[in-house]
Amino acid sequence: MDQVKGSQSIVFSSAPYIISTASVAGSKEAEGPLGKLFDMTNQDDLFGAQTWEEAESNMQKEACVLALGKAHIRAEEVRYLFGGDLLRQGIATSMGVEALQIPMFGLYGACSTSGEALALSSMSVAAGYGEYMLAVTSSHFGSAEKEFRFPLGYASQRPLSAHWTVTGSGAFVVGTRKTHVRVSGVTVGRIVDYGLKDSQNMGACMAPAAMDTIVRNFRDLGRCEDDYDRIVTGDLGYVGQSILLDLVKGQGYDIRKKHMDCGMTIFDQETQDTHAGGSGCGCAAVTLASFILPKIEKGEWKRVLFVPTGALMSTVSFNEGASIPGIAHGIVLEHC
Amino acid sequence: MDQVKGSQSIVFSSAPYIISTASVAGSKEAEGPLGKLFDMTNQDDLFGAQTWEEAESNMQKEACVLALGKAHIRAEEVRYLFGGDLLRQGIATSMGVEALQIPMFGLYGACSTSGEALALSSMSVAAGYGEYMLAVTSSHFGSAEKEFRFPLGYASQRPLSAHWTVTGSGAFVVGTRKTHVRVSGVTVGRIVDYGLKDSQNMGACMAPAAMDTIVRNFRDLGRCEDDYDRIVTGDLGYVGQSILLDLVKGQGYDIRKKHMDCGMTIFDQETQDTHAGGSGCGCAAVTLASFILPKIEKGEWKRVLFVPTGALMSTVSFNEGASIPGIAHGIVLEHC
Repeated sequence: MDQVKGSQSIVFSSAPYIISTASVAGSKEAEGPLGKLFDMTNQDDLFGAQTWEEAESNMQKEACVLALGKAHIRAEEVRYLFGGDLLRQGIATSMGVEALQIPMFGLYGACSTSGEALALSSMSVAAGYGEYMLAVTSSHFGSAEKEFRFPLGYASQRPLSAHWTVTGSGAFVVGTRKTHVRVSGVTVGRIVDYGLKDSQNMGACMAPAAMDTIVRNFRDLGRCEDDYDRIVTGDLGYVGQSILLDLVKGQGYDIRKKHMDCGMTIFDQETQDTHAGGSGCGCAAVTLASFILPKIEKGEWKRVLFVPTGALMSTVSFNEGASIPGIAHGIVLEHC
Repeated sequence: MDQVKGSQSIVFSSAPYIISTASVAGSKEAEGPLGKLFDMTNQDDLFGAQTWEEAESNMQKEACVLALGKAHIRAEEVRYLFGGDLLRQGIATSMGVEALQIPMFGLYGACSTSGEALALSSMSVAAGYGEYMLAVTSSHFGSAEKEFRFPLGYASQRPLSAHWTVTGSGAFVVGTRKTHVRVSGVTVGRIVDYGLKDSQNMGACMAPAAMDTIVRNFRDLGRCEDDYDRIVTGDLGYVGQSILLDLVKGQGYDIRKKHMDCGMTIFDQETQDTHAGGSGCGCAAVTLASFILPKIEKGEWKRVLFVPTGALMSTVSFNEGASIPGIAHGIVLEHC
């Protein structure tokens, strides 16, 4: 068990590789700073479907097929698929990956699911359970508004602390075949609850969990902010980032110069006003696939701690007055 | 990779043990055939809570605490927790296991989730990622009716093919410490869709997936029905069972004498009329914990194939006319 480090982390003795990635995104994302980097975008956000849910499933399917194509493998060669989304009963994933017929594990970790899927894929490859695993997550602005908020036709006004759910899906083939990016370790997150109850301020709900996982990664691995070129959170946004930086400072680390948030990267705050920034299972996934991994591949960044963040709630728990705890999973990505 | 068998299975070279189990169940379950076998039951089904959702969370927490107590370990000694339930955004699990503060992976596999959690726990232990893992799932009649069907006050009549969601939670400590039950292998399920759309006939929706996983297990491992003392499905019920037996026969196997279904075992059909039988994430979990594993422990059954079955749907996918595919995960349990 020499791979097990500290209380929550694993450092792989045979670190798996990220063999290929794919990003599929919507029209607003296409107009943003990363627009030209996505593999596929769509102008009406329906991706050929009749409903937002089916559109999200189609995005997942396209992302998987693209990632498989880039890895030059067939779906039958993938041992297991790890996937999830934000919708009730993970229906975007079930309907999205069905056609691939890969044995699958359905996941739910709110917007941290891309980290959960990459962690389990990497753990399975490193354990020798297969040559290729596929990790996929998605979110869709239309289906998420329907699931969590108000009918779009109401044109409800949102507070400045609210996020804009990213329409996008990212897929990752993880395996044993050598590339220039390895998953060298993972830090599995705990549920962290500071008692916040405002579903229109997810950044504040998730920041404590991000802090917990980042600091745990440092302590489990005997590292600090200097050991990473970037520490990337999923979708804390502008409100969550300032809370995170303060909380991490309270633990004796200063990640100010190393921190990047996918929710603040995917949209342009000046021209695309999304209030607190982007969010959703797809936000961290497409930013990782299109923007972060290519930099690691080229060696521009040598080591990155990728920490997608999730807010654990449902409309039922919210209506019943429950708090909104957060969770975040840490993935250590290294150039090699 | 000598552990990888066929296209979907793993046979562990160091098979993990089931160290302890716990079952918590509701009042109707307490009156059923397994009533005296559960570790804890409750008469008002609220488990000290104000809402059905919180009641379900409390069941999960109690099941985890009981299982940890029986294993004589503290929560801090558990490396990772794998858990899930049927509610939107898996909220029963998030709120239920929060207090334990174990790093966790949230899962969704509908009523197959106990198989998914046991598979990933076993894979993680066998890979050397920790000494102890905790697998937990739950369902609650009240929260499930609210999530998927009609307000109980309507007193809607249900068709004979409908199931009765089990109020219960089962928890399992999986680890390296020797006991008399091992998880010797797993067969991870694929999504199987025969195009059925009737959410009041889940047995029919899930039977093809159960067949697929059982037959795949036979073929991957070079086995047949004679190699198992029991082949146990999760919640196919009376309708699903007859379909399963026919489908499996069509593949050249006769499991008639070996088949048992948790949904048909947990309630008494004569006195507790539950139509097609029990269902839910908790159904297979509490039946495994209270009835099946003790028999394997004593050596009464030497080898059992446990195959919890899930129907992948949500109220949204149902309303949008989508079909209801199934998934089933196979867990091979052996006396040692």
